[in-house]
Amino acid sequence: MAGPGLYAAHVTEAAQAREPGRRAPEDGVLDLLGIVAYAQLTAFFRLTDDAALAVELADKAALAEMAAAEFGHFQLVRRRIEELHADPWQVMAPFVAAVDAFHARTAPADWLEGLVKAYVGDGIAADFYRTVATLLDAPTQALVLEVLADTGHAEFVIERVRAAIAADPKVAGRLALWARRLVGEAFGQAQRVAAEREPLARLLADDSRNQLGDIGRMFARLTDAHAARMAALGLSP
Amino acid sequence: MAGPGLYAAHVTEAAQAREPGRRAPEDGVLDLLGIVAYAQLTAFFRLTDDAALAVELADKAALAEMAAAEFGHFQLVRRRIEELHADPWQVMAPFVAAVDAFHARTAPADWLEGLVKAYVGDGIAADFYRTVATLLDAPTQALVLEVLADTGHAEFVIERVRAAIAADPKVAGRLALWARRLVGEAFGQAQRVAAEREPLARLLADDSRNQLGDIGRMFARLTDAHAARMAALGLSP
Repeated sequence: MAGPGLYAAHVTEAAQAREPGRRAPEDGVLDLLGIVAYAQLTAFFRLTDDAALAVELADKAALAEMAAAEFGHFQLVRRRIEELHADPWQVMAPFVAAVDAFHARTAPADWLEGLVKAYVGDGIAADFYRTVATLLDAPTQALVLEVLADTGHAEFVIERVRAAIAADPKVAGRLALWARRLVGEAFGQAQRVAAEREPLARLLADDSRNQLGDIGRMFARLTDAHAARMAALGLSP
Repeated sequence: MAGPGLYAAHVTEAAQAREPGRRAPEDGVLDLLGIVAYAQLTAFFRLTDDAALAVELADKAALAEMAAAEFGHFQLVRRRIEELHADPWQVMAPFVAAVDAFHARTAPADWLEGLVKAYVGDGIAADFYRTVATLLDAPTQALVLEVLADTGHAEFVIERVRAAIAADPKVAGRLALWARRLVGEAFGQAQRVAAEREPLARLLADDSRNQLGDIGRMFARLTDAHAARMAALGLSP
C-alpha cells in the first residue's frame, strides 16, 4: 500500500482533470468512492465466509450469490475511480481500518446471525449510497443507481429468518439484539471515518447541495429505514 | 440434503424428458454436471478463502475476481441441470465428499501455495471439461465451451510466481512439490468418484463415443497439459 504522499499526488491529478462547474474529486467524492469500493470488496469476503456457516447447499449458494453481486458492484466503483484518474487501491487505503474493525467486531456466531448481518448491512449500505448519490456528479450518480438496481438478493433472508422465529420464538430477541449491535458498530465506524476525513465530512454536511443537513440527521434517516427492515424480518427494531 | 431415493426419482424424470437419439442423462451426464457444478461452487469458496492470504489489496481483488468467475460458471451449469428437469442440489450431493476431501487435504499454507493451487486447479479443471465436452449433447457442450472461453483470469498468477522464484530460487522446489501433491490428490479423488459412480465411469470410458480410451489414459493426457502449465510457472513438473 502506498503512503499518503502518492495518494495526494493522484488526488491532485484528478482535480486537474475536472471540468468547470463539476464538483472536484478532492471535495470528498474520491473518499466516498473509496469507502464504498472497500466496503463492497470486504462485503464480498465476509458474505462468502458467512455462507460457509450454512448447512444446506442451497442456502450456501444463495449467500454466495449475494457475495458475487457485491463483487460486481466493487468492479463498477473501482472502474469509476480509475475514470477519475485515481488509483483505486490508494483511494481505498484510508478506509481499510474502519471497515475491517466493523467486521472484526461483528463476526456472526451462527448462520442466522450471518443472514441478519447480510440483510441489515446490505440495506443500510443501499440507503447510504442512495442518500449520497445526490451529492455526486451525473456519471457517478448513474453508477450508484445502477449498483442499487442490482440489489434485492436479500429477499430469501426474510423467509429464512421468519421461519426460524416461527420454529423457536426465543430466536427473535437474540437476533433483534444482534441487529442493534450491527447498527451501533456501523455508525460508530462511520463517525470515526467522518472525523478523520474532513473533505468527506464536508461533502456529507453540505446543506447547499443536499437534503441531509448533517451526519447526525443522516444517521436518523438511515435508522428509520432500518426499523422498516427489522419489521420485515419480524424483529423489534 | 435429500436421500438417494429422491435423486433417483429426478433422474428418471430427466430420462423421460430426453429426445430420441440423444444420450440419456442417467448415462452419466447428470453425474458429470453435478461434479462440475459442485467443484465450481467449492472453488468459489476456496479461492475466496485463499485470497484472504494476500498482503496486497490488488492481489486479493485479483483472486476474488477468479472466484467470482467460478461462481458465474457454477450458475450456468446449475441452470443446465435444471433444464434437464433435475434438482441441482441432489445431482451435486454424491460428489460433496470427494470434492471436500480434496480441499481439506490441500489447504494452502501461504499466498504462493494458494496462487499455484488456483492456477493448477483451474487448468486441470478446464482440461477435464474440454475433454468431457465431446461426450455431451449439443446444448451442454455449448455451455461447457462458453464456460471455458471465460477463463484466463489466471494469467496474473504466472507473473507473481515467476517474480517470487526470481526473488528466492529456493521457492521453486517447494512449489513444484506442492503442485505434484495437488495433482496426486485430485486424481486420487477422481478415481474414488469413478469407482463409486458407475454411470459416470461408463460415460468416461466409452470408446465408441470419444477418444479417451479409459480413465487412465485421460489422466495421462491431463498430466501432459499440466506439465506445460508447470513450465509456464517456471517449475519442474
